[in-house]
Amino acid sequence: MPGPVQSIERAAAILRLLARGSGRLGVSEIAGSLGLARGTAHGILRTLQGVGFVEQDEETGKYRLGAALLHLGTSYLDVNELRSRAINWADALAARSGEAVRIGTPLDGKVLVVHHVFRPDDTLQTLDVGALLPAHATALGKVLLAYGAAATLHGELEPFTRRTTTVPRELARMLAEVRDMGWAAEVEEMTVGEAGVAAPIRGQGGLVVGAMGITGAVERICGPGGRPKPTLVTGVRDAARAVSRDLGASRW
Amino acid sequence: MPGPVQSIERAAAILRLLARGSGRLGVSEIAGSLGLARGTAHGILRTLQGVGFVEQDEETGKYRLGAALLHLGTSYLDVNELRSRAINWADALAARSGEAVRIGTPLDGKVLVVHHVFRPDDTLQTLDVGALLPAHATALGKVLLAYGAAATLHGELEPFTRRTTTVPRELARMLAEVRDMGWAAEVEEMTVGEAGVAAPIRGQGGLVVGAMGITGAVERICGPGGRPKPTLVTGVRDAARAVSRDLGASRW
Repeated sequence: MPGPVQSIERAAAILRLLARGSGRLGVSEIAGSLGLARGTAHGILRTLQGVGFVEQDEETGKYRLGAALLHLGTSYLDVNELRSRAINWADALAARSGEAVRIGTPLDGKVLVVHHVFRPDDTLQTLDVGALLPAHATALGKVLLAYGAAATLHGELEPFTRRTTTVPRELARMLAEVRDMGWAAEVEEMTVGEAGVAAPIRGQGGLVVGAMGITGAVERICGPGGRPKPTLVTGVRDAARAVSRDLGASRW
Repeated sequence: MPGPVQSIERAAAILRLLARGSGRLGVSEIAGSLGLARGTAHGILRTLQGVGFVEQDEETGKYRLGAALLHLGTSYLDVNELRSRAINWADALAARSGEAVRIGTPLDGKVLVVHHVFRPDDTLQTLDVGALLPAHATALGKVLLAYGAAATLHGELEPFTRRTTTVPRELARMLAEVRDMGWAAEVEEMTVGEAGVAAPIRGQGGLVVGAMGITGAVERICGPGGRPKPTLVTGVRDAARAVSRDLGASRW
């Protein structure tokens, strides 16, 4: 069994670095951040530039992500079975619930949004596809964490509002509850004024491969007790089960 | 000056291969297509899997593109200056013209769509961002070819309709005309019943870095003579000039 190819791992690390923060870095900053010799970083950057994965700013000489990555990212979506199986169910859920629907899959301990149906009204909304959401502060993420689809979180749990769960033990208790109930809630933990509900999507072997959920204004999602309305929870769970069935899950 | 890193070039070739066709390939198919030893291809694939750039299907053992690429692709869009400068002008152009607006940038001799504003009506439309359009059959592509932003096309010019230009000499004449006029047209060359107009977007040094255009039903875009209506052409050219100015182009 051959070991991993070091230069490819380094190239991936450079791309991840460029995807964070300002998105424009000089060769010395990149070499410094990753502990590489300047010449090594330069060789990798020039190769990445040659294949269109990075571009160099003519004026500043700084590097940024390249156009070829956009096409690869879109191609990923085209063959993503979770997304293709879920599209119709997501549309139906958005229509019935009147709320925005998102489907997430785990990536680097976070939630990668692979599909997003806008809330069916005429307000201006931003497409979240390709965005990474924090796992501990979203209903989608709690589902992925609870069923072991996303890796356990290490380090600090970043607070987004004063209701974000930042204590690991409290999060663990919450995730046990998610497993008991079969769904997760998020009430103003990511964004003030917003709440959400999500349920697991299972793949062929029965393992959780993604999560599907709705988010919207807390007064529409939650009932008088401050908990999500049972009809919305049922709608989300039914939709996620329908996707699981289409993916060939043996149990859901 | 160090040479390109071979393993990174091979990894990029594997990703491009997976982005084409069915999107799922076994290690032998990949090794065969790229002329690599099976063990070499396997080592690269395992490394790409480790960094989330490819995923392996549990059942078939075949490889497909991975989720990390979607996030990198979206991050590319976030720092894309052409797109960020163009968003408002594209919205305004769609509103004024009543047609769909797309912004393209060159990639591998094709047009990569980096921004797409839907036609302002309530019909169902598919987001083209991340798609690759053929350069010789689209107004956006002809602009990029005419001004040297996209590399000259080699090999066959694929016919999409019976009006697609497939003769290199005819295309060359057409591109000279684009340079003379300062804009390009597309009349049922890519899709029967659809026409389009596009104009160049220039960057800081005055070089063409992208193209902006509208597409729509041929009876709305074209006048009685079968050529695009002058008011639409003016609208597209003005919008592209406005973006060029915002990008700091010295002349437009």
